[in-house]
Amino acid sequence: MRDFLPEDVRRREYVIGIIKRVYERYGFEPLETPAVENLDTLLGKYGDEGNQLIFKILKRGEHEKTGEADLALRYDLTVPLARVVAQHQAKLPRLFKRYQIQPVWRADRPARGRFREFFQCDVDSLGSTSPVVEAELCAAVADALTGLGFSDFVIRMNHRDVLAGLLSVSGVGPGLHGEAMVALDKFDKIGASGVGIELERRGIEEPARTALISLLDVGADLKVGPYADENLDRLAHALQVDPPGSAGVENMRAIVRLTAGTSAAGRIRIDPTLARGLSYYTGAIWEINVTDLAGSLGAGGRYDNLVGMFSGQDIPACGFSLGLERILVVMTERGMFPPTLATSPADVMLATFDASAAADAMRVAGTLRAGGLRVLVYPDADKIGKQIKYADGRGIPFVALLGDDEIKAGTVTVKNLAAQTQQTYPQAAAAAAIREALTPRG
Amino acid sequence: MRDFLPEDVRRREYVIGIIKRVYERYGFEPLETPAVENLDTLLGKYGDEGNQLIFKILKRGEHEKTGEADLALRYDLTVPLARVVAQHQAKLPRLFKRYQIQPVWRADRPARGRFREFFQCDVDSLGSTSPVVEAELCAAVADALTGLGFSDFVIRMNHRDVLAGLLSVSGVGPGLHGEAMVALDKFDKIGASGVGIELERRGIEEPARTALISLLDVGADLKVGPYADENLDRLAHALQVDPPGSAGVENMRAIVRLTAGTSAAGRIRIDPTLARGLSYYTGAIWEINVTDLAGSLGAGGRYDNLVGMFSGQDIPACGFSLGLERILVVMTERGMFPPTLATSPADVMLATFDASAAADAMRVAGTLRAGGLRVLVYPDADKIGKQIKYADGRGIPFVALLGDDEIKAGTVTVKNLAAQTQQTYPQAAAAAAIREALTPRG
Repeated sequence: MRDFLPEDVRRREYVIGIIKRVYERYGFEPLETPAVENLDTLLGKYGDEGNQLIFKILKRGEHEKTGEADLALRYDLTVPLARVVAQHQAKLPRLFKRYQIQPVWRADRPARGRFREFFQCDVDSLGSTSPVVEAELCAAVADALTGLGFSDFVIRMNHRDVLAGLLSVSGVGPGLHGEAMVALDKFDKIGASGVGIELERRGIEEPARTALISLLDVGADLKVGPYADENLDRLAHALQVDPPGSAGVENMRAIVRLTAGTSAAGRIRIDPTLARGLSYYTGAIWEINVTDLAGSLGAGGRYDNLVGMFSGQDIPACGFSLGLERILVVMTERGMFPPTLATSPADVMLATFDASAAADAMRVAGTLRAGGLRVLVYPDADKIGKQIKYADGRGIPFVALLGDDEIKAGTVTVKNLAAQTQQTYPQAAAAAAIREALTPRG
Repeated sequence: MRDFLPEDVRRREYVIGIIKRVYERYGFEPLETPAVENLDTLLGKYGDEGNQLIFKILKRGEHEKTGEADLALRYDLTVPLARVVAQHQAKLPRLFKRYQIQPVWRADRPARGRFREFFQCDVDSLGSTSPVVEAELCAAVADALTGLGFSDFVIRMNHRDVLAGLLSVSGVGPGLHGEAMVALDKFDKIGASGVGIELERRGIEEPARTALISLLDVGADLKVGPYADENLDRLAHALQVDPPGSAGVENMRAIVRLTAGTSAAGRIRIDPTLARGLSYYTGAIWEINVTDLAGSLGAGGRYDNLVGMFSGQDIPACGFSLGLERILVVMTERGMFPPTLATSPADVMLATFDASAAADAMRVAGTLRAGGLRVLVYPDADKIGKQIKYADGRGIPFVALLGDDEIKAGTVTVKNLAAQTQQTYPQAAAAAAIREALTPRG
């Protein structure tokens, strides 16, 4: 877990600001949930590996000695959303679109772009099974990434029913679907032969193994183009004897067609090897990749049964999660931040001549602030040269000087440190003059 | 701990936005620290009661069974700041002004405006002992509260050395100063006679008890006016035989004078009964009150020795913390939020006629979003009446209709739900027309 010094915070807020604005343009509303959930709320939602990675909080008071935990740190933003929708259903609209940008915690081994505390930028729609929901989510995340300056991302898409259908028609028994999916998910990393070995190790026998690999060879071909009806037709052909699988293909076809006029057009790549670890997905699933990051920038999918785990009544739901830290890693390495992103703490520093002038300095600082400037008052009556050096070292472009003459005349002298010029203004006029000088010439 | 539904988040962000803008105008820079700190970092910094209220996190892996805790949830933002300054000193400027707006967690009994997870809005200056630091902090929080619409707050001020001086000159032995301060801090609630009983209970004997109470009667008088040199003169007179106490009075006098031209002018009330629980304060201390809240809206003080507890090298420091939840409670009860604060999820809703028109609806939604509008696409091909009713119920002022005729003509029909009028625009011109209609007439 890391501290974020001012420059880090400014970069994080720049990225969050763009993502928020895009999400709000799509009609998503903000939600925040507590960092701490009941342990029971989280257990059993993320699979065995997930359970192991939850940070648990000791019971309070006399129970503390027992070492028992009843609370835990939030592990993702999807399970808390499902809990909120189940708990506050009467207060929420029938169609609820929410975004949530908050930290989550996992006791995972840290790696590049992976931390124990990290921010997820989630966007979810609840209440409808229409593929318009999926298409809008793809468009929204594509708009957000485009707004941040990404031009090379791909949204890999698969469907849980297509995955299950491919396993069924290959002859993998239902009891082995889970094992097979874990093997399939590694296709990207270890290729067809590696997946074959992994399938064998996980108990998938011949001829199912060879049949599945040969269907995935179709998958490998599909990855060449970003997407095309032709690719979906091939999957439909393979799944014509499996009605749920066929419906999954048609669902993906609808999603692709609905995004034709949006930022997601040409971004979606059908990838039948994509499996996604979380067990709660029930329909389309996604992962967003760029070539220079091994992990994904974001992921998501449809999960129509999760709310029902809390309320007993299912509500259809679908969502996307962007990983803030992953995005920051790539943007930092590629130099994607605008040069205008503020790096100095202030526009102008008021120097302090002597303790008796400090009250005047504070008053003039107030005038400059009211004029829209960020103003730092140097607190100590150090030598003026030392004060100016401090401003220069911090990247503050102007220093305002308030000596006896200026105080008497109601003026202030403003030094431009880069241009090495200075000019005296009436105190009330100084802010406008500095603002004018700060505006980049076009 | 609570969930924040969209309306709550918008109110919180409104308040945080104003506070941030004011702090940035004063040259404070943003800092963020992890929610989780090493338990050792927090223990021993908040007194015995504080230690009890820290949420502890179980050790991971095989140690989990032992019930041992090595991590803990952040208890305030001051101790993490001191740790950061000690740890990253080489990367930070000599004079470091930071603000930090993040949640903290205390296993406290919940009450009105008091929760187990709550946000602190902290602002601190490190590196200078000048009273300009204190005066700027008072001006900044006064500006923030004024910006939020508060016009009746008072900044109560005392000084640790004045407090110690009053105890010394009354004859309270140094070993009993802590006990006496706990009693004094209740002056507001239980009055002079109550404090007398409390002092007796805590082992402060006569004649010290009566001497102290009589000095505090001066204190009671002082509370009448907001502040005046005359009041400080009386304290100076009482403390003339106690040099540190006298210096404390002069320090407060300097702070009051420095704020004369700022928003804090007339807000500071000298209150010698103010003690503040936290043990790390070394100079001026504050609490901000309004009449309709029992607790304080904020508090702060100087703590010159805390950084040294981490680095071995003291760095002077002083800060203020505003309590977001307390501010929200009062603002909600007083109706202080602007009516313009958005409550609807979108400016316009695109109705869906049938599934085949949905791709066109998404394309037109993109055009409206590019034109600066927040647009919700209704995902299902429900009856139009039902869709319009949904928009109306959510407070969405406009519904855009895209039927076969509109699609062919490249137009869109926009219904104004309040005025019950509708008009057809070329798709590219609709955003400007809706924006125009949304702007309040002046």
